[in-house]
Amino acid sequence: MIGIDSLLLKEIITRALNEDIGTGDITTQSIIPENYVTTGFIQAKEKGVVAGLEVAREVFWRLCPDIFFQPRVKDGDQVEADQILARVEGDARSILTGERVALNFLQRMSGISTHTAYLVSLIKDNNAKLVDTRKTTPGLRVFEKYSVRIGGGFNHRFGLYDAILIKDNHIKVSGSVTAAITSARAMAPFSMGIEVEVETLEYLEEAITAGANIVMLDNMSYETMKKAVELAAGRVLLEASGGINEETIQAVAKTGVDFISVGSLTHHIKSLDISLDIGEVKPMTSLKFRPDEND
Amino acid sequence: MIGIDSLLLKEIITRALNEDIGTGDITTQSIIPENYVTTGFIQAKEKGVVAGLEVAREVFWRLCPDIFFQPRVKDGDQVEADQILARVEGDARSILTGERVALNFLQRMSGISTHTAYLVSLIKDNNAKLVDTRKTTPGLRVFEKYSVRIGGGFNHRFGLYDAILIKDNHIKVSGSVTAAITSARAMAPFSMGIEVEVETLEYLEEAITAGANIVMLDNMSYETMKKAVELAAGRVLLEASGGINEETIQAVAKTGVDFISVGSLTHHIKSLDISLDIGEVKPMTSLKFRPDEND
Amino acid sequence: MIGIDSLLLKEIITRALNEDIGTGDITTQSIIPENYVTTGFIQAKEKGVVAGLEVAREVFWRLCPDIFFQPRVKDGDQVEADQILARVEGDARSILTGERVALNFLQRMSGISTHTAYLVSLIKDNNAKLVDTRKTTPGLRVFEKYSVRIGGGFNHRFGLYDAILIKDNHIKVSGSVTAAITSARAMAPFSMGIEVEVETLEYLEEAITAGANIVMLDNMSYETMKKAVELAAGRVLLEASGGINEETIQAVAKTGVDFISVGSLTHHIKSLDISLDIGEVKPMTSLKFRPDEND
Amino acid sequence: MIGIDSLLLKEIITRALNEDIGTGDITTQSIIPENYVTTGFIQAKEKGVVAGLEVAREVFWRLCPDIFFQPRVKDGDQVEADQILARVEGDARSILTGERVALNFLQRMSGISTHTAYLVSLIKDNNAKLVDTRKTTPGLRVFEKYSVRIGGGFNHRFGLYDAILIKDNHIKVSGSVTAAITSARAMAPFSMGIEVEVETLEYLEEAITAGANIVMLDNMSYETMKKAVELAAGRVLLEASGGINEETIQAVAKTGVDFISVGSLTHHIKSLDISLDIGEVKPMTSLKFRPDEND
Amino acid sequence: MIGIDSLLLKEIITRALNEDIGTGDITTQSIIPENYVTTGFIQAKEKGVVAGLEVAREVFWRLCPDIFFQPRVKDGDQVEADQILARVEGDARSILTGERVALNFLQRMSGISTHTAYLVSLIKDNNAKLVDTRKTTPGLRVFEKYSVRIGGGFNHRFGLYDAILIKDNHIKVSGSVTAAITSARAMAPFSMGIEVEVETLEYLEEAITAGANIVMLDNMSYETMKKAVELAAGRVLLEASGGINEETIQAVAKTGVDFISVGSLTHHIKSLDISLDIGEVKPMTSLKFRPDEND
Amino acid sequence: MIGIDSLLLKEIITRALNEDIGTGDITTQSIIPENYVTTGFIQAKEKGVVAGLEVAREVFWRLCPDIFFQPRVKDGDQVEADQILARVEGDARSILTGERVALNFLQRMSGISTHTAYLVSLIKDNNAKLVDTRKTTPGLRVFEKYSVRIGGGFNHRFGLYDAILIKDNHIKVSGSVTAAITSARAMAPFSMGIEVEVETLEYLEEAITAGANIVMLDNMSYETMKKAVELAAGRVLLEASGGINEETIQAVAKTGVDFISVGSLTHHIKSLDISLDIGEVKPMTSLKFRPDEND
Repeated sequence: MIGIDSLLLKEIITRALNEDIGTGDITTQSIIPENYVTTGFIQAKEKGVVAGLEVAREVFWRLCPDIFFQPRVKDGDQVEADQILARVEGDARSILTGERVALNFLQRMSGISTHTAYLVSLIKDNNAKLVDTRKTTPGLRVFEKYSVRIGGGFNHRFGLYDAILIKDNHIKVSGSVTAAITSARAMAPFSMGIEVEVETLEYLEEAITAGANIVMLDNMSYETMKKAVELAAGRVLLEASGGINEETIQAVAKTGVDFISVGSLTHHIKSLDISLDIGEVKPMTSLKFRPDEND
Repeated sequence: MIGIDSLLLKEIITRALNEDIGTGDITTQSIIPENYVTTGFIQAKEKGVVAGLEVAREVFWRLCPDIFFQPRVKDGDQVEADQILARVEGDARSILTGERVALNFLQRMSGISTHTAYLVSLIKDNNAKLVDTRKTTPGLRVFEKYSVRIGGGFNHRFGLYDAILIKDNHIKVSGSVTAAITSARAMAPFSMGIEVEVETLEYLEEAITAGANIVMLDNMSYETMKKAVELAAGRVLLEASGGINEETIQAVAKTGVDFISVGSLTHHIKSLDISLDIGEVKPMTSLKFRPDEND
Repeated sequence: MIGIDSLLLKEIITRALNEDIGTGDITTQSIIPENYVTTGFIQAKEKGVVAGLEVAREVFWRLCPDIFFQPRVKDGDQVEADQILARVEGDARSILTGERVALNFLQRMSGISTHTAYLVSLIKDNNAKLVDTRKTTPGLRVFEKYSVRIGGGFNHRFGLYDAILIKDNHIKVSGSVTAAITSARAMAPFSMGIEVEVETLEYLEEAITAGANIVMLDNMSYETMKKAVELAAGRVLLEASGGINEETIQAVAKTGVDFISVGSLTHHIKSLDISLDIGEVKPMTSLKFRPDEND
Repeated sequence: MIGIDSLLLKEIITRALNEDIGTGDITTQSIIPENYVTTGFIQAKEKGVVAGLEVAREVFWRLCPDIFFQPRVKDGDQVEADQILARVEGDARSILTGERVALNFLQRMSGISTHTAYLVSLIKDNNAKLVDTRKTTPGLRVFEKYSVRIGGGFNHRFGLYDAILIKDNHIKVSGSVTAAITSARAMAPFSMGIEVEVETLEYLEEAITAGANIVMLDNMSYETMKKAVELAAGRVLLEASGGINEETIQAVAKTGVDFISVGSLTHHIKSLDISLDIGEVKPMTSLKFRPDEND
Repeated sequence: MIGIDSLLLKEIITRALNEDIGTGDITTQSIIPENYVTTGFIQAKEKGVVAGLEVAREVFWRLCPDIFFQPRVKDGDQVEADQILARVEGDARSILTGERVALNFLQRMSGISTHTAYLVSLIKDNNAKLVDTRKTTPGLRVFEKYSVRIGGGFNHRFGLYDAILIKDNHIKVSGSVTAAITSARAMAPFSMGIEVEVETLEYLEEAITAGANIVMLDNMSYETMKKAVELAAGRVLLEASGGINEETIQAVAKTGVDFISVGSLTHHIKSLDISLDIGEVKPMTSLKFRPDEND
Repeated sequence: MIGIDSLLLKEIITRALNEDIGTGDITTQSIIPENYVTTGFIQAKEKGVVAGLEVAREVFWRLCPDIFFQPRVKDGDQVEADQILARVEGDARSILTGERVALNFLQRMSGISTHTAYLVSLIKDNNAKLVDTRKTTPGLRVFEKYSVRIGGGFNHRFGLYDAILIKDNHIKVSGSVTAAITSARAMAPFSMGIEVEVETLEYLEEAITAGANIVMLDNMSYETMKKAVELAAGRVLLEASGGINEETIQAVAKTGVDFISVGSLTHHIKSLDISLDIGEVKPMTSLKFRPDEND
């Protein structure tokens, strides 16, 4: 499985902690003594697919490297309401201070993977794969694309730098689909795939002939998409795109396209309800941090 | 109106552009010649309340300071489907490259302000004010809290550093509500308000006596909240909190509380549908960048 | 006690080390061999109140995480000339390279806490609390406000973002004290305290009526301050401000105000004289880093 | 004159503004409308030598590049109480928001240059030059060393990277002054001066013979310093160091040493009293920003 | 043409200037007065292909945005010894301070484009394209890959993130070429090309069958490469790799491969000899900065 | 020996890893399972002088702190083709992902030290020392100057901030060599050496008289250099400069100059051929990471 690059992970988490903590968690520092410990349980409050446990763990580790974080499930697991996702044990100040940031990541990411898994389940009997888009939250793209993968979806390009995607305006400036593909092929790194967005079957044929690797069928009717699949006949990968949602995705999948991209995977984010229930806060003793196998 | 601090604005936008552009927008650079210009129209595709026009403008300005960005509405305006929000004119490469990032910000922010405005409208005949929480997207808190203000809501604290909020665990460690408030008052900056989360009327009374400025009524029944309002009798501000949504918010408002905090304002983000329609891309001429008053 | 946020602590120290070390401590690297160790004693050369031991320790840890730093006193302790504050043992290059930066922090912070403690002692028989201002050294505000706390003082707001402070110019633009407070109340986070600076008792009364939480009495005579205390009668917190120094602070405290803010706490910084006396530098042996209990 | 490197200047100022403004100047944003302008006068409240006008200007420019900043004196000028140092005109929000940071820099820097100028005046009839040390405020070294130059003093090395300074511990490890100098000479960039700290005349002679460029006379009596000057006879530069203050500096200068280093120039910082008096805040008109020659 | 992303450009240049200038260009600041201007000519001292004029210009602009930089040739032009590449006019301090950094970039980049152009010329009668590798100078990859494009070469992937390149070790862990391609295809963004490194024709056939887009022929003999070309028969792009240099590149090109990757393009960097000849330095007059058309 | 400052080391390596890894090493993450280990051997493929082993180690440690890196030689050692330089053992993903960046540093640095050692060997029977220049790769100066030291060369100044180097243009503006030296002496930190570039013996004499520490003989004939050495007679250090290469360096050394600076040490970088040969990749077992003494 493709995880989140650890250098990016730390950088994004540090920024999030700075945003929330600023000059200090005054409440916790005023009230909770140093060297107190506690145990918390991260718990799902509704059904869903978990994503981001490693992110939550890293949030606590940035605040205190000694915190014991014991996952009870793993990313991608389907969990039920009230199911415990992880146990967090250690320095009480750090756990209280990090709680909100850890949950903010975990809830959003799990929300994305849950919705992805749902859409994937709708098309599970077809060949089509569900893919994401660049309509992600600024600053969190690697986290959101990871959540899509965890939910069973696949990733489209990560940015403007790692694939060619020729759209309407590019074609107009070039003069033709062929000209646009030729320009891109001549200049882009040769290891880079080229995708072209088309609105008609004529352009599809032209794109295939000109050497596109993928063609995006933009807002086509089911009927036209079926014809596109026949026309392409495996010569190119086909991606259906444009306002596809849970009501239309099955019909789209049945047209035989290879990929279905759904922007709402990441531009409509409904956080999964997850809480951190913190137990007694007490002075650290010599037995601290040893997980109790019986709880 | 409290805007977004301009230093933060630039920093967050630069990061977002780096994330999307990386080593370069290969498609645009391959196909669109230098010194070509175009005109685009940012258009709402559904009804809502706009927020983030200044952010969208800054996205384009970071890529090319000469881009002409002419807003047709202002943040906070209610717009209809197909209404033009802004005209963007200038360097074609920059407009094509910045499009997605500009929309990613604008759509999310407008989604938040639209939902906020809706909830505000539900309680408009009451005294209660709608407020946000710290359940915001990591890295974008200032943008999201701004969107809440634009939608007619109010802000709760910005982070752990700018207000005291004493919760269950803090109280347990201190021994009592009074002890917790006393500790916080003794250590926090004296200009800082103190809020206490309570679950019973006894604790409410204790919090008032101990000098809290605000009391959060956590998951109380409407009945209990009404009693809390009577008990407080203006001695303290009251905030209702805990799973409040569009179905329950009116009933909560009618209890007479001063503030109603709703986490879903920012942890459930449904982007408003907004597009950038780009016109002809053509070589720059001497008349470039002069807005046409007739379009 | 409210400590210094550890993420900020590391960031500021890293910057300070970069400033001093740049491309390398050429002297030490030329002369001291690798893997040599030494022991140093941080020693007060004059009487004062120590602040910043954790900062000094972190300076050495950034250079070498294995350095043994054993405090002999703790922040807030009153120390005498020649008293040992801490023992530092480990990698000789790191100790020699970090010495100046560690002392630069420790001496400034202890200077602030010493002066704070002195002023606090002058008003110890009154209710008034000594508070700091925003007249801090750019880049070091969290360290300096911590030092004020360590010296027995209290913190005013940390910046422009965590409390409202309405001054003369704001009032003039608003038209009246009441109008200014109303604007601020309507827009600021509701958890934020509002302070107003006034020069007359009329404005004080208006500020109280309009709902200020704190009123700053700006450059008032003792007589007027006394009347202000009577007039306020506990309805609002009162802060005396304006050129208060060691000669006038007792008289101010006797007026009955709640807080006395003194800018010179941080804009006049007299470093406490503290040195690091380094012992023999010798090759590391197997017994390295074990503190000798007898020295 | 050696100014402050402009890249560093901007970086340090941006950091200082972020520290103070954080998520926003809530007071000003709540009360002062957009597009209001004002005029302020930066005024000395006591006699001194000004340093940092360019820094103050840059603070305002970071917030609003259109602010008109008109210096009435220049860095290094001796000013009197009530003398106007600069006029600031433009966007009212930016001037109010930047005021404190601009003054925090200007007051500290002018405090340093004032004290430097005073000590320089004490030794003006001697050849000795006054120099600073590395006992500077972490993060602000370039600003403080600039202030020393402005006050008529001279700079010692900027950090551990730009000159060799061999101290007691280095000598002990090397075995002798000669050995230490030899090691340093063999490894350091050949363009780098080598200074050695000595406590006796024997070591002075050894240092000269071994090729030191500068010798620091550490805590020597006036008598010994005089002998050192005779012994050196121009073969090496001599720096007097160790607890020198306004009472002893003249006697030290008379010994004939070339340089006198005084740590208190930067580790005892007494801000010069400077204020920003802000005039009427009013809506911007077409005549904005044109300086009035008569005020 | 694909240029260098402007955000990256500025970031890398700022870092380079910080590295060289540090706390300031002491020589220039000591000797050249403020507000002096000069004119310099960037001149090739040997024959070559220029790359990096925009980088050089940006170096000067970071130091002083008013500097007039007039290119006399453009990137990609073949220039002769003594040919003028650009005229630089404006603030003398900035031109003297920026000289070395501007040349360090320009000389390295032009060295790469010159060598690339030479190798390209050797294979100009074949279909094979010359491509670069990831053997670039850490921190300068976008600059070096740009220089390769300018010299007529093509880019391979920019990093580990924008294309799949399956090597020996990946294949061993997967068990077979087919298994490795299948894993990658299943997990990587679908827009990403897949390349496989093979050492035998058997593996080539397997890679084609398994759906590779590109196959790298690793250190094959000319004979085997020819057979590979026949075997592939256009079903896949072929890249020759492994120690190819100016002596062997023609023979490799004649085998009919599509791409020839040459690591030495960027891991052997021979700077082109380019100088900046600076004219008279004189006080700024009212006619400053107007380019003289006759020089 | 003067090593590379560890804070800079980490910063530069982190940047290099970010550049290469970006959003993730898709190939490795797709194919190599988590918790697999491997052993690799860093091996020279040609004869040379090694530099940068610590840098290579740190690259792997940034990716996984548990990697076992066992050097078999040390920086500065002359190695033969096929000689093993280090053994790397641990997490397979990290070793595969870090390979290229580690080698990119190690090969460049060893290339520099190898070429330096060769030139040093040519002049080993003379007193002259070989020194580098500021013609280094932007961003990597500390690494390149370290490599020069490792190869037996010496460092010239690190940047514009740590030594005075007065050139032609400075002299012209000042009016004379003497005036330029006087200005620099009056303003620069007194611990800083002053070097002057001269083209004639008259200027050499003037520079010595005016107090220069070092004089750079710019593009002088051997004959003139010899006269310069006689003229200087030890009163000043002499540096020969200007297009010196392996063919001319011995003749230059024989003139008796003290230093010979050679720009091509760092502006012509020929990477030493070094590879990382990775063994079997297999699941981690309990015996992982224990170096096998017999291989």
